[in-house]
Amino acid sequence: MRKYFEDFVVGQSWESASITLSEEDIIRFAREYDPQPMHTDPAAAANGRFGGLIASGWQVTALSMKLFVESGAYGETPMVGMGIDELRWRKPVRPGDTLSVLREVAALERSEKKPGYGIVKTRVSVRNQDGDVVMSMISLGQVPARPAADVIPEVTPPR
Amino acid sequence: MRKYFEDFVVGQSWESASITLSEEDIIRFAREYDPQPMHTDPAAAANGRFGGLIASGWQVTALSMKLFVESGAYGETPMVGMGIDELRWRKPVRPGDTLSVLREVAALERSEKKPGYGIVKTRVSVRNQDGDVVMSMISLGQVPARPAADVIPEVTPPR
Repeated sequence: MRKYFEDFVVGQSWESASITLSEEDIIRFAREYDPQPMHTDPAAAANGRFGGLIASGWQVTALSMKLFVESGAYGETPMVGMGIDELRWRKPVRPGDTLSVLREVAALERSEKKPGYGIVKTRVSVRNQDGDVVMSMISLGQVPARPAADVIPEVTPPR
Repeated sequence: MRKYFEDFVVGQSWESASITLSEEDIIRFAREYDPQPMHTDPAAAANGRFGGLIASGWQVTALSMKLFVESGAYGETPMVGMGIDELRWRKPVRPGDTLSVLREVAALERSEKKPGYGIVKTRVSVRNQDGDVVMSMISLGQVPARPAADVIPEVTPPR
């Protein structure tokens, strides 16, 4: 099923499934993308500012994408990201934490540059098992407008 | 070597090394974090809007972190991200593209909530092999202020 810009409504929301992060998951991501001791070295991290290993913030954003894609909220319509505003990492994510994502439509705007598309602004919150928001952001997604030929015709009652 | 808030200067900049992304790199990241056909399925992507496989935007952000950490710009001081403003994915990243990162200090602010820290705002640009900016963002990093005992004493000339 394809979703078009016209199918979105301000205020609608989706809740994702949840995922639990192991120490191994945190270290594997960080070794490749954010190789700092607070993310890769449990012993060094224990003596550091956070008192233990914490996940890279970029792993949390990537997981928020994974959980949302897997929720199927957009059907077969590709989620094309134009950008992100006001991304904030609010709490550390630690081994064993279970994360889930709430995404709400905050605004809908016709694209000025590309009339065949609309911009869906969504507010994304990642929560842990205690209900604390660990990360939040506003995501700007580009979604195709419904083609004219695809408008559902009014039903004419049979004579 | 540790770097403190007082060691940063508005206008200073760092250029990272570069990294070339293979089709396999793009698919491997996307299968785990952004499983959409435009990132995971070369045949489907060839018939899609971008005319070929493109990297997940979240892989580009993660790679910008990797390249910057590996540049060693902050010495041994952890780069603790508070957030990101105005992240924009400006151009598709395709298999074979070579990316590098320019990071410039845009502003320095004392933290009001945490007097022992300062906020280093940096402007991050990821460029491809043609010099096109494929992604840009403003990163807000929390950096410890120099401890009082650590202030370099003025040299008293020997009598």
